[in-house]
Amino acid sequence: MRILLIGATGTIGRAVGDLLGERHDLVRASRRGPYQVDLTDPASIDAMFTEVGTVDAVVCCAASGAMSALTGPAFWTGLDGKLLGQVNLVRQALPHVRDGGSITITSGRFAEPVPGSSLGFLVNAGLEAFVRAAATELPRGLRLNAVSPGWVSETLTGLGMDPADGTPAADVARLYSESVEGTASGRTWTSSPPTPGPSTSGSSRMSRP
Amino acid sequence: MRILLIGATGTIGRAVGDLLGERHDLVRASRRGPYQVDLTDPASIDAMFTEVGTVDAVVCCAASGAMSALTGPAFWTGLDGKLLGQVNLVRQALPHVRDGGSITITSGRFAEPVPGSSLGFLVNAGLEAFVRAAATELPRGLRLNAVSPGWVSETLTGLGMDPADGTPAADVARLYSESVEGTASGRTWTSSPPTPGPSTSGSSRMSRP
Ligand SMILES: NC(=O)c1ccc[n+]([C@@H]2O[C@H](COP(=O)([O-])OP(=O)(O)OC[C@H]3O[C@@H](n4cnc5c(N)ncnc54)[C@H](OP(=O)(O)O)[C@@H]3O)[C@@H](O)[C@H]2O)c1
Ligand SMILES: NC(=O)c1ccc[n+]([C@@H]2O[C@H](COP(=O)([O-])OP(=O)(O)OC[C@H]3O[C@@H](n4cnc5c(N)ncnc54)[C@H](OP(=O)(O)O)[C@@H]3O)[C@@H](O)[C@H]2O)c1
Repeated sequence: MRILLIGATGTIGRAVGDLLGERHDLVRASRRGPYQVDLTDPASIDAMFTEVGTVDAVVCCAASGAMSALTGPAFWTGLDGKLLGQVNLVRQALPHVRDGGSITITSGRFAEPVPGSSLGFLVNAGLEAFVRAAATELPRGLRLNAVSPGWVSETLTGLGMDPADGTPAADVARLYSESVEGTASGRTWTSSPPTPGPSTSGSSRMSRP
Repeated sequence: MRILLIGATGTIGRAVGDLLGERHDLVRASRRGPYQVDLTDPASIDAMFTEVGTVDAVVCCAASGAMSALTGPAFWTGLDGKLLGQVNLVRQALPHVRDGGSITITSGRFAEPVPGSSLGFLVNAGLEAFVRAAATELPRGLRLNAVSPGWVSETLTGLGMDPADGTPAADVARLYSESVEGTASGRTWTSSPPTPGPSTSGSSRMSRP
């Protein structure tokens, strides 16, 4: 398959690239390239597809949602790229994905609501509900799924925290390959440990991401 | 209590006004007044609070989310008012609600994902997850809840459909009074029948709202 991987240089994106690159033809994109795209700018999404052409799958593990207080000025950070950007990506990608192909986006899992997490909750729950509903109206057998990682071990290590509280990026990457290489649509995969977010139940130790 | 009711002239808003007006002092607002506010315009929200002053509760049953195809030009309809507008309302209301007071917003329930429902799913799930998380960071004992109506009988009648498939507005109004007069926070009340939306399970007959 020819797969467009957006956010290919990130912690998750590199692991997804390592895994899918073994058996597929990858086209890598992010703001700094090689193919350039800024999810916050719909024109740049169109420009990317004009350059890249037709693909069998689009995988997006770009952007990130910062924590910020309800009353803080940075509150809306993450809405443009992660929520609106990924929804625009799905809409704009449709004509460029081959019959039966797939689009996979990224949400995220908080262990529990804490101060500063309210926009993250909105974005992640909104994306997963969107995926579930939008999958019902895709043409030509196209599929749409989300991967909802909890903490990634490499990210925890980078923050000086215990990587054992997260899931290795290589394991998260396997969820993306299930979406790309499988047959599911409208689904969200979560990396263990499951946590009591908007659409799961269970318990966990951490409050981000 | 002194209660600001936004969307007071609507199908649900009139019923909420009838119920809460029996025992509280209501201040009614919508785009056409008496107090004027357009949820899509944050400056008009500030202007409303400057005029209205301090209240014990804010109830919002304004705006509406239209159905529209994933690839249609009207796709984003409903995001500005219903999602961003209500989140802005919560943020901007905080300094104007008395200690221990409440804010209640409105989401909605689709029976199941169908073509045209994807933004509605995003908005409703996003609002409910937001309420759950934002409630954890409210100051001064303030509370935040959502009401998530399924079809309202009067709306079905207006559409020439069977009102028995919905819940009378007067019953939906009682969910708002539970939020205003009770002690819960971070909660979403759903009007029966429960339907398999992003955060419930069960089954029902209709696909909107
Ligand atoms: N790491 C975790 O623990 C974790 C947990 C749950 C969820 N997630 C989610 O998973 C996704 C990826 O996380 P990550 O930790 O791998 O992020 P990361 O290491 O910060 O990498 C982000 C990637 O996205 C690209 N990017 C950022 N903003 C972009 C934009 N506006 N347009 C296009 N590309 C953009 C970056 O490259 P450029 O700078 O070149 O654009 C980079 O390739 C995010 O949505 C994050 O919220 C991560
Ligand atoms: N009725 C149903 O079956 C049903 C089911 C589930 C969910 N809901 C949700 O419940 C809410 C109310 O529904 P409804 O049927 O009562 O609506 P409605 O009858 O259309 O009334 C809408 C009310 O909101 C006001 N409004 C509209 N846009 C506004 C804006 N941008 N800023 C401020 N006020 C605005 C309107 O007055 P002005 O025109 O003067 O602004 C009116 O008072 C909506 O969020 C809807 O999605 C309704």
